[in-house]
Amino acid sequence: MLLEAMYHVPRDKWAYAYNSSTIHLRVRTKRNDVHYVTALTGDKYDWNGTYKEIQLEKAASDNMFDYWEVAVKPQFKRLTYIFRITAGSEDVFLADNGIHYETPYPTGGYYEFSYIHEIDVFKVPEWAKEAVFYQIMTERFANGDPKLNPKETHDWGGKPELDNYFGGDLQGVLDHLYDLTELGVNAIYFTPLFQANSYHKYDTIDYKKVDPHFGDNALLKQLTEECHRLGIRVMLDAVFNHCSEDFPPFQDVLQNGKNSKYADWFHINEYPVQIKDGIPTYDTFGFYGNMPKFNTANPEVKAYLLDVAEYWIKEIKLDGWRLDVANEVDNHFWRDFRKVVKAANPEAYIVGEVWSDSLTWLMGDQFDSVMNYPFADKVLQFFCGSMDGYNFANEMGSLIMRYPQQTNEVIFNMLCSHDTPRLLSRLGEDKRRLKLSVVFLFTYIGTPCIFYGDEVGISGDADPDCRKCMEWDPDKQDRELYDFYRLMIDLRKSNEALRKGRFRFLKADHNDPCIVYERVDDNLHFTVWMNNTPQDRTLSHPMETKDWKDALTEEPVFPADGMMNIKLDPYGYRILYRQLDPATIQHN
Amino acid sequence: MLLEAMYHVPRDKWAYAYNSSTIHLRVRTKRNDVHYVTALTGDKYDWNGTYKEIQLEKAASDNMFDYWEVAVKPQFKRLTYIFRITAGSEDVFLADNGIHYETPYPTGGYYEFSYIHEIDVFKVPEWAKEAVFYQIMTERFANGDPKLNPKETHDWGGKPELDNYFGGDLQGVLDHLYDLTELGVNAIYFTPLFQANSYHKYDTIDYKKVDPHFGDNALLKQLTEECHRLGIRVMLDAVFNHCSEDFPPFQDVLQNGKNSKYADWFHINEYPVQIKDGIPTYDTFGFYGNMPKFNTANPEVKAYLLDVAEYWIKEIKLDGWRLDVANEVDNHFWRDFRKVVKAANPEAYIVGEVWSDSLTWLMGDQFDSVMNYPFADKVLQFFCGSMDGYNFANEMGSLIMRYPQQTNEVIFNMLCSHDTPRLLSRLGEDKRRLKLSVVFLFTYIGTPCIFYGDEVGISGDADPDCRKCMEWDPDKQDRELYDFYRLMIDLRKSNEALRKGRFRFLKADHNDPCIVYERVDDNLHFTVWMNNTPQDRTLSHPMETKDWKDALTEEPVFPADGMMNIKLDPYGYRILYRQLDPATIQHN
Repeated sequence: MLLEAMYHVPRDKWAYAYNSSTIHLRVRTKRNDVHYVTALTGDKYDWNGTYKEIQLEKAASDNMFDYWEVAVKPQFKRLTYIFRITAGSEDVFLADNGIHYETPYPTGGYYEFSYIHEIDVFKVPEWAKEAVFYQIMTERFANGDPKLNPKETHDWGGKPELDNYFGGDLQGVLDHLYDLTELGVNAIYFTPLFQANSYHKYDTIDYKKVDPHFGDNALLKQLTEECHRLGIRVMLDAVFNHCSEDFPPFQDVLQNGKNSKYADWFHINEYPVQIKDGIPTYDTFGFYGNMPKFNTANPEVKAYLLDVAEYWIKEIKLDGWRLDVANEVDNHFWRDFRKVVKAANPEAYIVGEVWSDSLTWLMGDQFDSVMNYPFADKVLQFFCGSMDGYNFANEMGSLIMRYPQQTNEVIFNMLCSHDTPRLLSRLGEDKRRLKLSVVFLFTYIGTPCIFYGDEVGISGDADPDCRKCMEWDPDKQDRELYDFYRLMIDLRKSNEALRKGRFRFLKADHNDPCIVYERVDDNLHFTVWMNNTPQDRTLSHPMETKDWKDALTEEPVFPADGMMNIKLDPYGYRILYRQLDPATIQHN
Repeated sequence: MLLEAMYHVPRDKWAYAYNSSTIHLRVRTKRNDVHYVTALTGDKYDWNGTYKEIQLEKAASDNMFDYWEVAVKPQFKRLTYIFRITAGSEDVFLADNGIHYETPYPTGGYYEFSYIHEIDVFKVPEWAKEAVFYQIMTERFANGDPKLNPKETHDWGGKPELDNYFGGDLQGVLDHLYDLTELGVNAIYFTPLFQANSYHKYDTIDYKKVDPHFGDNALLKQLTEECHRLGIRVMLDAVFNHCSEDFPPFQDVLQNGKNSKYADWFHINEYPVQIKDGIPTYDTFGFYGNMPKFNTANPEVKAYLLDVAEYWIKEIKLDGWRLDVANEVDNHFWRDFRKVVKAANPEAYIVGEVWSDSLTWLMGDQFDSVMNYPFADKVLQFFCGSMDGYNFANEMGSLIMRYPQQTNEVIFNMLCSHDTPRLLSRLGEDKRRLKLSVVFLFTYIGTPCIFYGDEVGISGDADPDCRKCMEWDPDKQDRELYDFYRLMIDLRKSNEALRKGRFRFLKADHNDPCIVYERVDDNLHFTVWMNNTPQDRTLSHPMETKDWKDALTEEPVFPADGMMNIKLDPYGYRILYRQLDPATIQHN
């Protein structure tokens, strides 16, 4: 056994309370190196009286490691433990004080999960596990009230530039809510709506005022009420890292320098406040002088922004906040943010914008979820053809092991956003590949999100090209693609197994980009078959039962001699299912 | 290179802000497997304009791994980075999204330390870096006021039982403060002083009242004032996990059951509140029915205990809190505890009682330090003769890499306590071995603590035997040992290099329990030579300069032909030093 590959620490994603009675333990070993991992557990104040051995299961693998997992329910909320790792007739014991060849004497040097505290248990909103999100950049979605158009509004559908306007507004969203229910989404993530200088509104001037180009506060309230009536949740963008240079407190600093009573609202490194040799003398988002960074450690700033966070929850019964540039704001701020937000709405969904490893924020005291850009990257690499099934499964395994299960259940999975090229363009404008990636999105673990317009075939390179106007002309929409999206959304929403069922790759081979995987809960068993190649392919996998049906057509699909053989067109896919408990079938 | 052994995560002890301008990065590789580790760093918003390559240094090793470390000062508080790991002509690149054989394109998939926030920087009290602690169990230290004796007070020096009294009190401590200054300690850790049923007072009845057997609040105030006048800091024991069954709110619950307004102050699992088949129907410390566990998530309980924490800081200018059973109290509580305590005294020292891996509490938002029981274990195993120098160095390397540097600088190193056998008894009653362990304690990294009486030769097995009365009769004290302790304390206090200097083993070999190590700062260079065997030994190590002196005798010690040869008696030691900057010598 490769001892150097073994890993466990008694904290973060390796040992955490899943709920008030359950602790999840994870152990890492070298891939295909060991046969069993067993937790030797007990209460340290009565080790012999509470001793239990519990087998871990292999939960995921990546290109170097296997990950083992188990849920433990200690009798008295306290858990002391070590692991016995077995390969053949060889055992080693993994403990807090190192690796041993004999069982170390209990319980000195053992791992401890000292006590499950309800208040420290990481809880995420249940509704987010059921949600299908739709991301809207309001300025580019629909122009419902031309009276609000900015001065130089371009014709709808024109070429997006870094700073041009097309007149989209909240009335436009309101006018199209029925379209969204028809598509089937049940949650909207709006990029910022508050008063700002830019069309994208990431440079806020007034945090409590809807931008006049978009409408007013009353209209936003009406819109969210209508959303709620239609069963659509609403998440807004909290731009709390920085503001606009026209945010009044910053203007005050520009005018009064260090004598401004707002001087400590920002990070001023040198007076006068200016841009010197291209670099602002104050901290900013990136190096943009027009987006001064908040000093969120200042209690006044914190109180101000937390009031904003609470205000919109109470004012419009907001369901969630997406946190812009969340990783550059301090942890103290986010901890208090969570307290304020969850007090105002215990079911509020908090999603951080963090592009890299985010575990720091996902321990229960800060965010529920993050935008899963690493997921998008790997899925698109795979469906671009630059990865085989084996490596794709490894990447997905690695990502799922990044975070505790709570986050995995509601991680914000999108394939593109306003900050990346469009899905279609990243997949070489190949609709077949796009469909495969979308099938994967809607049959995988996490909370899926569609970027407005992807469903009707809008393409586009990086910003500004990805932020084109929504296409509303049915003749210019790809209706076949739209119907495919509807079908996928419906399939996911109708089947709990696709939202919460156990995920496993059945086929993920070296040098073959075709994959088969399953999702299964107590009621239904799904298998998804994907030919991620430009040739016809028949994929085969042993299947014992003969009760499989095509999930989209309801046609029965039979195995031959215990082998299911699925013939697929180039970039074709097929989704099969069978009932495990016919009494509770949810498929429609 | 063994890829499975490589480890880094962009958080906790692997990447943290050491101060408001410095980030510490650490990387793990298989031992003796790679030649260089280089951080490729920059600001993600201007990667090319800020790009820097920075070499890491090997900071420690254990039996499987080398640990590499570097301090980085990013220009704009933000750091994006990967590592290039080199063995011979082979390079691999360790990034957030995996291991690569070519430099991955910046900066997607790179690690990020997003922004150094002053408020999130882990700060520990400076004075704790200078402190030499002395732990006092008041009931067993000195009887200064026989009028306060409990009814059945035994003669001083009698056999300690689990529940007998000898009459020690605060007047006794006050009477002996001069002795402590003579010994040289400059901080006292008192086990609990507040009203309780037991002699040890870990079952608090009144958190704001000094136990009447010990004195009263005014006397405690007088004592701490006197300590402060003498330059002695005072740390008290915060028993916030549980209280006494006689704590009035718990009595209220016993009387009124679920109708008690204090019912939610505790974790009542079942009414009536009782002990059923040996197990309390409420959560307790261990399974002791007389120590009901607090529900610290209840805002009333939290407010009550935080008020206690603040009260004593303000009332007696308390310098620190040692937190009893700290790992079984919730993290939300400790985060607020830190805020309250540091607001009342920014230099307060917070030390958790946690026996296993404690990193969860040592990220800057909860404790400064923990009682370093793993350190005691390994040091005593080594000086008991059950480990060679190589493994001892590995164990010390492993421990130093458990925590960020801030904690290492003030980690509470003791060799025994009221919860373990006495040092002398753990070392087979061999004073020579005891001295070696004490030399190590006082020349190693961290904040040393002496358990009362160890310095005069008190021995004892586990509780209750380790809690004997202090020996005050000079004829029964081991005065030679006392003088040795004085010398060691003085040596440490007089030489910053021994408190803050870089530590390195110079000799730590397989199958040899003798060691040589150094501590060095800008001014002084110490080497410590230890013969941890029952035979005479001469230890040799190359030494280039001829300016070494014996740190205890000031005698010059010369190398021969570039080799220092130190002849040592069985279990002998020698401490050498030389001046690096004669202008600033601090040695006395």
